[in-house]
Amino acid sequence: MRLSRYFLPILKEAPSDAQIVSHQLMLRAGMIKQEAAGIYAWLPLGLRVLRKIENIVREEQVKAGAVELLMPTLQLADLWRESGRYDAYGPEMLRITDRHERELLYGPTNEEMVTDIFRGFVKSYKSLPLNLFHIQWKFRDERRPRFGVMRGREFLMKDAYSFDIDEASARIAYKRMFAAYLNTFARLGLKAVPMRADTGPIGGDLSHEFIVLAETGESEVFCDRKLVEMAPPGHDLSVEQLEGVFTERTALYAATEEMHDAAQFETQTAEGDRLSARGIEVGHIFYFGTKYSAAMKANVQGPNGKDAPVHMGSYGVGVSRLLGAIIEASHDAGGIIWPDAVAPFDVVVINLRASDEAVSAACEEAVAKLEAAGKDVLYDDTDERPGGKFATADLIGVPWQLTIGPKGLAEGVVELKRRATGEKQSLSLDAALELLTK
Amino acid sequence: MRLSRYFLPILKEAPSDAQIVSHQLMLRAGMIKQEAAGIYAWLPLGLRVLRKIENIVREEQVKAGAVELLMPTLQLADLWRESGRYDAYGPEMLRITDRHERELLYGPTNEEMVTDIFRGFVKSYKSLPLNLFHIQWKFRDERRPRFGVMRGREFLMKDAYSFDIDEASARIAYKRMFAAYLNTFARLGLKAVPMRADTGPIGGDLSHEFIVLAETGESEVFCDRKLVEMAPPGHDLSVEQLEGVFTERTALYAATEEMHDAAQFETQTAEGDRLSARGIEVGHIFYFGTKYSAAMKANVQGPNGKDAPVHMGSYGVGVSRLLGAIIEASHDAGGIIWPDAVAPFDVVVINLRASDEAVSAACEEAVAKLEAAGKDVLYDDTDERPGGKFATADLIGVPWQLTIGPKGLAEGVVELKRRATGEKQSLSLDAALELLTK
Repeated sequence: MRLSRYFLPILKEAPSDAQIVSHQLMLRAGMIKQEAAGIYAWLPLGLRVLRKIENIVREEQVKAGAVELLMPTLQLADLWRESGRYDAYGPEMLRITDRHERELLYGPTNEEMVTDIFRGFVKSYKSLPLNLFHIQWKFRDERRPRFGVMRGREFLMKDAYSFDIDEASARIAYKRMFAAYLNTFARLGLKAVPMRADTGPIGGDLSHEFIVLAETGESEVFCDRKLVEMAPPGHDLSVEQLEGVFTERTALYAATEEMHDAAQFETQTAEGDRLSARGIEVGHIFYFGTKYSAAMKANVQGPNGKDAPVHMGSYGVGVSRLLGAIIEASHDAGGIIWPDAVAPFDVVVINLRASDEAVSAACEEAVAKLEAAGKDVLYDDTDERPGGKFATADLIGVPWQLTIGPKGLAEGVVELKRRATGEKQSLSLDAALELLTK
Repeated sequence: MRLSRYFLPILKEAPSDAQIVSHQLMLRAGMIKQEAAGIYAWLPLGLRVLRKIENIVREEQVKAGAVELLMPTLQLADLWRESGRYDAYGPEMLRITDRHERELLYGPTNEEMVTDIFRGFVKSYKSLPLNLFHIQWKFRDERRPRFGVMRGREFLMKDAYSFDIDEASARIAYKRMFAAYLNTFARLGLKAVPMRADTGPIGGDLSHEFIVLAETGESEVFCDRKLVEMAPPGHDLSVEQLEGVFTERTALYAATEEMHDAAQFETQTAEGDRLSARGIEVGHIFYFGTKYSAAMKANVQGPNGKDAPVHMGSYGVGVSRLLGAIIEASHDAGGIIWPDAVAPFDVVVINLRASDEAVSAACEEAVAKLEAAGKDVLYDDTDERPGGKFATADLIGVPWQLTIGPKGLAEGVVELKRRATGEKQSLSLDAALELLTK
């Protein structure tokens, strides 16, 4: 992508109402533009990262056996009356009346609708287990939206819903998603710790939040340091392996501020392993049994020939929120430092003198070769001054910067900089391309 | 994908309120489920086709130089007051009030918001030309939603917006999108004819609809037969080539019922070339100059140093509607016949006796090899009877059916059927796989 033909509106300064660093950096890097309180347009750079995160989340759901569908943003109020949540949900639910005076709402979550889909088609235990997920825009009418995409009103969420014949198999489905989340966040370059959580308005008796540790996190968390460093469990796990993954982690202390028990923390965790830190919630999983299926008559016939309500769990990831969480966890004074897996571009090629034919030819050769190797390349072909180009490249956080200028080219060298470490090396263009595409 | 682990709720009969064949077939094939009038959930099979269409539309936009962003579904009413359309739009606009009594709406289109984004960042002709597009859910509160996804209320639309310094360059941008649409619909396997159109509430003086010909189309259309058979123009066209593509097509008669002039049709078109047919609108493009930019003060500084409103056009494709249009244009008594490019799976492997180890081993080998070759494979590993499996495979319209059973396997043959023609051949598994992956 040539920067001269792209739409990357960099701001010199963030608006003063952006209070946290991820919000400031997303505005400065031209990733988002606010269109109303808590409602954002995703500018091209922001959308690229959003899609990369979404795709990783999707791939890990599919690897865990979940099947993707897509529910609409608007729902019938009557569906929520069946579960009893229409009145209970309160002012965070955006309630809408259409031209025929029918009551709709902008879905804040989808337990009711997915239960309706399930009961419309599935009648027998033979169709189970089943896990259906979608990645769709949601709306929660926060009283005080703030912190950019971290607490927006219109936000992108992945929500999965498991259906099982009994509690025992539902708990296995829960643990499968627990493991899938560990894999997902690791691929996103995050250290996310599962913490036992309150079930809140979703209901149920088993729930974990996944918390990313970041100095600027929204809340205080307490956990065993060993949890932070554990490797992700990987794929295609047997039920025994899933139990092992779950037990190994939940045996260690981990709690958010509201669930924290200082005495238990001290008993359970050696002093050197006690970590208290700030955290950001990026995922939340629930097992809630027959709460919705019983209310909404989502019954399946069991092997005994009798109908009974299906056992369910739900599993959410805040996809748009993850951009903020990743930036909070990975930035410096110069700007964003994207983990490789979610970076909007793999490399930015910086042309130090766009008016110089030899420099431009070398840049275009580099871009063509990198793209042929499957890399996403941003080519800064503008005539801005070098200092501005370097500042932009640092700000938008592309993992590699390949700089080509007339002086170096005369000496047969280009400069390659790794954004995360700041490490620079001078080398031939061929050597740089080999390093970037190996 | 193993059918036993998938979610494909086939219906024996379509609900009686489904009036047109695409709606009936999408319901029967388990592609959609209605959640409210004109509001559908996309079940896994439907979502796969929706994403394939969306990706083709996206790729052709990018090839034509448009840059993708993503605007939110909800918009501020005040933005539409600036253009004067808030009151003018009427009851089709879904108007919403949030908890703080702020007036929002569910975007039916995005001229206002994209103009707001443009004016927030772009100040000089040096940043032009620019074409921004997004693919996002829209809502139009149709008085009488019907025909499934063909006239839904919540629907997926690709909308692009071009920005140019003057009318001459804006008309080039228009022709670039005109050519991109021809390429897009051809890739989707459709014969779509551009027809001069009324500009309606969008405004402007230049507009074309793209109409798919189908016997069951919603309206009558009239055109020169030569238009239907013209090859798509291809990519990377010069301005001269774009002018040629546009002139060559617009010189031939083509009109929807409301724009039809029978006398002119006869004068302009030889009798043998006069085609009157039924059609479905799948795209609509507009040049409307400074209608929105003047009202909303989206000015850019020209080379002369003076500010003037930017010249704009907008370009829509009904992405979710295209599923209906494709089915209307391509089906038979047995079900859907997907064009290869948009099929939910490339091939369905039908196991005629899932209890037979040799048959299952051959099927799994076929699935593994096809997937290794990059094919999307549905594997019918269920224990349904063969007749039901064939009927399902025909109904869901996968282009190739590879059937493996005990009798054929003993003779060293499998059966390969092409859905579109019904042509069947018996051949060795290796020969079948070679044919499918070549």
